[in-house]
Amino acid sequence: MTAETLLLDYGSGGRASQRLIAELFFKHFDNPYLTAMNDGAVLDIRGPVAMSTDSYTVDPLFFPGGDIGTLAVHGTVNDVAMMGARPAYLSCGFILEEGLPMETLERIVTSMGLAARESGVLIVTGDTKVVPRGCVDKIFINTTGVGEIIADPAPAGDKARPGDVILVSGTMGDHGLTILSHREGLSFATDVASDSAPLARMVERLTYETGSIHVLRDPTRGGLATTLNEIAAQSGMVFTIREEDIPVRESVRSGCSFLGLDPLYLANEGKLICILPADKAQQALEIMRQTQFGGDAAVIGQVLAPGDGPGKAGQVVMQTPLGGHRLLNMLEGEQLPRIC
Amino acid sequence: MTAETLLLDYGSGGRASQRLIAELFFKHFDNPYLTAMNDGAVLDIRGPVAMSTDSYTVDPLFFPGGDIGTLAVHGTVNDVAMMGARPAYLSCGFILEEGLPMETLERIVTSMGLAARESGVLIVTGDTKVVPRGCVDKIFINTTGVGEIIADPAPAGDKARPGDVILVSGTMGDHGLTILSHREGLSFATDVASDSAPLARMVERLTYETGSIHVLRDPTRGGLATTLNEIAAQSGMVFTIREEDIPVRESVRSGCSFLGLDPLYLANEGKLICILPADKAQQALEIMRQTQFGGDAAVIGQVLAPGDGPGKAGQVVMQTPLGGHRLLNMLEGEQLPRIC
Repeated sequence: MTAETLLLDYGSGGRASQRLIAELFFKHFDNPYLTAMNDGAVLDIRGPVAMSTDSYTVDPLFFPGGDIGTLAVHGTVNDVAMMGARPAYLSCGFILEEGLPMETLERIVTSMGLAARESGVLIVTGDTKVVPRGCVDKIFINTTGVGEIIADPAPAGDKARPGDVILVSGTMGDHGLTILSHREGLSFATDVASDSAPLARMVERLTYETGSIHVLRDPTRGGLATTLNEIAAQSGMVFTIREEDIPVRESVRSGCSFLGLDPLYLANEGKLICILPADKAQQALEIMRQTQFGGDAAVIGQVLAPGDGPGKAGQVVMQTPLGGHRLLNMLEGEQLPRIC
Repeated sequence: MTAETLLLDYGSGGRASQRLIAELFFKHFDNPYLTAMNDGAVLDIRGPVAMSTDSYTVDPLFFPGGDIGTLAVHGTVNDVAMMGARPAYLSCGFILEEGLPMETLERIVTSMGLAARESGVLIVTGDTKVVPRGCVDKIFINTTGVGEIIADPAPAGDKARPGDVILVSGTMGDHGLTILSHREGLSFATDVASDSAPLARMVERLTYETGSIHVLRDPTRGGLATTLNEIAAQSGMVFTIREEDIPVRESVRSGCSFLGLDPLYLANEGKLICILPADKAQQALEIMRQTQFGGDAAVIGQVLAPGDGPGKAGQVVMQTPLGGHRLLNMLEGEQLPRIC
């Protein structure tokens, strides 16, 4: 690239845009769908198709364990995977601030290219807008993903059934605490890193090998507590969770304690919740632990019909280590803006 | 909605987000895909599938002929249609500034719902981020669209052939001049309006009835001149265009003249370029003129093999009314940021 900072005419649709596309995006996202240079891509995909979208506005752009580019790939790959699908293609829309250092953009685009390859997806079509200084904070990215549904029936939030078991694929709160501590320049930040990771292969193995996943969802914004509440409400069930079985890293626990945060409300970017029949729980746990991002997987609770224990339909009941229980509510208010 | 301006916690993923989704998005985008409330949507679609994405950052948000919401629907619907596809589903990612009046958001979401129904597409999945004041200018929207390819073979930018005829579906420059004049508060603005419109039905008729479209593309950013140059380069052909046959509204011509702009470099948001064999040109022209947004359609030029006339491969040669010719170049620099 010749210019060292991004100029408005890189988003004009004219010659400068074409140079940006050719010299930066084609270089890092290289694939025949993209380089056909039409207004979109023609995909080799047969239905049924899962589709999911997310915009990424994380601040800071770079943090331990990832950056806005890895997040934009992993986040959408994971959302597509949670539909019981094999993520295959991503679109990518950049909104860039005039004056952004080209080096920053190239570093992010490089990350995205690597993350896409690691996740087994192709970035097949895109859009770049450059807006005047002050109209956006540096860089926002939207990715939208599609993939073929591989689970039959597909998992969904309303399919948790009495007797099902609830698993998580690893430790909770790593991403959220990393962003907050890094943003605030706190010293314990050296011990924590984002868990940003693609979960498509874990989902593929869980789907094919257990054959009976009822619910899959990644506990991102709002954390585990909010996501469990959403699912309990959609399914009309009561979830009971054992507090001591929820995996939380010691560094995250102490960082949260210091800041008065609860790790169960902090975003994760490389973890999933899996709900399935009890007789498949052990198998699912082993699959998770064998796969790259599931080493700390754990069974954390179960699904009850309303009336079969404390709590009403749609509630999440936390069993404390001392045998008590309390309601685990959905996030109210905003703990942390621009977490992803 | 209770709050009159948008608060950060509407983007938290928690309870406030869920209220926003239920009370605003479900109301205006109502369809069973969306209201299933999973992380994505499962689409009834069989391949091959076309996919296209665009982010919309237009300033001002509201303008004669449309707003950022209509643009976000029509723009992506048209990009999918230009792949020779029938647009079916859109995802929608909002990035909202804290403090945005709820009334502004609702007005835009209402427009999007209407535009989607008019375009024959469903908004099936979405994402909402609220960022602190000053991190984004009011509202940016990404839409990503998918649809089944209906043209076989599908049109593409590299398929223009010697002897083909070049048509446009209507007048050039309306959208670009409207945005610029409205932004600057210029008085002649009363006579111009954006052409923002969905072209999917026009494409469907052209596809099925002519059976042989080589290239379809909508001349958005960079305008007709830039888009023709892109296609000529992809196809390795020379395009000759007759200046006097390009439809331009008198009000747009005089507004451009006043401002020193060229309507052939201004964005259009409801027009297409169609390139097909000469023996189908009259039929295509009649189809365009019969459909809702093609009343001013015109044949504007033809495709030559390099060496069969003035100009080299990839060049667009403009024939002037006096019989001269000049090269029509691609846009260099930025005439107008935040046009769409």
